[in-house]
Amino acid sequence: MQRTLIKDLEKNIDQKVLVKGWIDVRRDQGKMVFVDVRDMSGKVQGVVLPSATDALEVAQKIRQEWVVAITAQVNKRPERNIKEGVQNGTIELEILDIEVLAEAEPLPFDMSPTGYNLDLVTELDNRALALRHPKNQAIFKVKETIIDSFREFMKQNMFFEFQAPSITPAVAEGGAEVFEVDYFDKKAYLSQSPQLYKQIAMTAFERVFSVNKIFRAEPSATTRHLTEVVSLDAEFGFIDSWKDVRDMAEETVRFILKSLAEKNTQHLAFLGAELPVMIDYTPTMSLTEAHQKIFEVYGRDNRGDKDLSTQDEIEISEIVKKETGSDFVFVYGYPTRKKPFYVFPSPENPEFNEGVDLICRGREWLSGGRRINKYDQLMEHVKIWEMEPSKIQMFLDAFKYGAPPEGGFALGAERMTMQILGLKNVRQASMFPRDMDRIDVNLNKEKPEGEYI
Amino acid sequence: MQRTLIKDLEKNIDQKVLVKGWIDVRRDQGKMVFVDVRDMSGKVQGVVLPSATDALEVAQKIRQEWVVAITAQVNKRPERNIKEGVQNGTIELEILDIEVLAEAEPLPFDMSPTGYNLDLVTELDNRALALRHPKNQAIFKVKETIIDSFREFMKQNMFFEFQAPSITPAVAEGGAEVFEVDYFDKKAYLSQSPQLYKQIAMTAFERVFSVNKIFRAEPSATTRHLTEVVSLDAEFGFIDSWKDVRDMAEETVRFILKSLAEKNTQHLAFLGAELPVMIDYTPTMSLTEAHQKIFEVYGRDNRGDKDLSTQDEIEISEIVKKETGSDFVFVYGYPTRKKPFYVFPSPENPEFNEGVDLICRGREWLSGGRRINKYDQLMEHVKIWEMEPSKIQMFLDAFKYGAPPEGGFALGAERMTMQILGLKNVRQASMFPRDMDRIDVNLNKEKPEGEYI
Repeated sequence: MQRTLIKDLEKNIDQKVLVKGWIDVRRDQGKMVFVDVRDMSGKVQGVVLPSATDALEVAQKIRQEWVVAITAQVNKRPERNIKEGVQNGTIELEILDIEVLAEAEPLPFDMSPTGYNLDLVTELDNRALALRHPKNQAIFKVKETIIDSFREFMKQNMFFEFQAPSITPAVAEGGAEVFEVDYFDKKAYLSQSPQLYKQIAMTAFERVFSVNKIFRAEPSATTRHLTEVVSLDAEFGFIDSWKDVRDMAEETVRFILKSLAEKNTQHLAFLGAELPVMIDYTPTMSLTEAHQKIFEVYGRDNRGDKDLSTQDEIEISEIVKKETGSDFVFVYGYPTRKKPFYVFPSPENPEFNEGVDLICRGREWLSGGRRINKYDQLMEHVKIWEMEPSKIQMFLDAFKYGAPPEGGFALGAERMTMQILGLKNVRQASMFPRDMDRIDVNLNKEKPEGEYI
Repeated sequence: MQRTLIKDLEKNIDQKVLVKGWIDVRRDQGKMVFVDVRDMSGKVQGVVLPSATDALEVAQKIRQEWVVAITAQVNKRPERNIKEGVQNGTIELEILDIEVLAEAEPLPFDMSPTGYNLDLVTELDNRALALRHPKNQAIFKVKETIIDSFREFMKQNMFFEFQAPSITPAVAEGGAEVFEVDYFDKKAYLSQSPQLYKQIAMTAFERVFSVNKIFRAEPSATTRHLTEVVSLDAEFGFIDSWKDVRDMAEETVRFILKSLAEKNTQHLAFLGAELPVMIDYTPTMSLTEAHQKIFEVYGRDNRGDKDLSTQDEIEISEIVKKETGSDFVFVYGYPTRKKPFYVFPSPENPEFNEGVDLICRGREWLSGGRRINKYDQLMEHVKIWEMEPSKIQMFLDAFKYGAPPEGGFALGAERMTMQILGLKNVRQASMFPRDMDRIDVNLNKEKPEGEYI
């Protein structure tokens, strides 16, 4: 018999079906055994009646997480037993036969939706099993949609997908917080950002994006640090100003939120997460204006600061939320010398640049802006920033031979997942989180140093 | 005025348009200047007539690869000047105004479709500029389709996309050919394969796939070696036998070929590439049968060998092509002890396993098979293969708590691109190829050691 997926059972009332999955719950009532069976498409309740003697014998032996193939009759539930709003709440399987495909050892902790309550260290120490829990299923299905809808929006807008490299030669920017690789008898480094590569690819393909790993060797183990994350990167040519970058970034995030609302309603509900509100036109202000507003509303005077502090990000979000209802705010115009050499200085006031960040509910989600496209201006910056041109020769070549006015942005998949779901620790948004203390297993014999909450 | 993409010009006959792009070709005839302009959507010819005095002055100054914004009238060509089968062959731009958005230095080599003829070292030394050439545009658009259609097929079949890690702890398999990373004061390694992670993810999500980087530190610099490549990985549960893996692999490749035929006709034509033929049911034989056939047809006696040699792969492809017309052949059943510990031994003859490879035109494209899913059997293999269980604890946990009969496969994106396009060197299929000698720039002062042809 062909296998029937659990999501399709309601189409098979009064039919005999073959269901394959894991035992999610088992309740032995002596003469009868009730089981919930789970496959990738959902859950269903089944019952083994006393008449099914062989099946009953197996049912009395099986335990949670055993893998089974069940032959059963799909019965409509009597009216009084119907569970409204629950998958397969109108049916029940009358189990006729159970084949055990694989046994499972007794579980080391309670896996039930209500009983599951592990601290993060224990959860990560038991990652393989923990991934089966509906909480983690929901988190990673949300993350999948974030990444996939980013790609979908990019493709709709004619962006070309390229593969940014992970192994890089001498580091152009960043410095110490980079992982070194033994590369035969030489040194190489893990990429901190595909920035220069996406700009190169842009000069050949005009609109490009990549979904790629980036690596940060910051010796910090806070609730917000991972050493390996997924970066969603976009870069495109023929913009008129940084506002085109702002607009494209806004529409990208809007599309991701819309996709989540459509595809992950149940996951968001299970996790008690509410999508942030994006209004028709996200409030947009300069760094100077943001500091001024914070001063006026909260009396904290950061005017003249070179960047938004963590507290600034929280307060400007609160102000904008109260004024407009928007959970998002764009902040542009940072001091030119505080940012990388490729960021475009404002023609009106070259002390400030045309970089732009998107802040949501008090945290930066996205960073981007217009870049310098003219070779002469780029070479001037290379000199002022004291870059070594030979180390970024391929990048400089791309602009030497004609590059349009351009810009782009980047989003962090784990950070977005964390923020959207209100997770307390970014490690929860990485299936196999890497940090100072952990690569699958704890690297330190002693207690981990990191903040695991 | 809003920019019009070059692909949409034919819809704008007799209209005034704004076109933005690169100067692809420029022919100065004194009183008139002809230019071909290129954007991400295509090319178009334009002419600056003597009457457009300002535009003519600019046109006499601009050179190849300068970036321009052109205001022009879209004119229908006279009947005798129509170029059949060429994009925009029925129209010509009458250029009224040219704004230079960025200049370009004189090009270091001929970029015209016919004149472009660089050796690979020169091409890679000038990668940024070379990427603009139609040859490279075609290669990477083909590669984009290979990767994207893999994902599309997976999603159609309910596979969940997860992010396999790049940084890994102590190596489970492989050994010496792995890159070491300085991980704070410890050692970590770059992933050679997401194999164990995809099996873990499978036990939680049933059907999973990933598109991820893998790294090989083989000290070889042949035409087939890269240190960083893109691996397309799939793994799924509830199979009945290795044949389900074979079938899913076949349908995946069939879908990729179909997508290429639909989306990349012009790129394939430009590169003179012909897609391999996949017949309704790809011929499938055991290793023993393959060696027997080679012996019968070519007289080379490799019967009893533990694997297919490079020459075997070429000959079995030739035999199958002649017999059936298929460019593909599946070979299964390798000696169990020659393959990794997780591969499923055939129940009929445990000396041979249920691994399966797909060979196309003499080269392996895909490797996969059924895996062991029962914990006891897995632990037996761990013992025989002399694995250290603590180093793969998370993997073993996944199977300890119930895993269905399962299997999967992996494809290399660069190798497929190379093979489909008949490229002579796999470096051509990587936008930023990494090998023993090169990470963007040549790492050795002397002549590179690698085979660059």
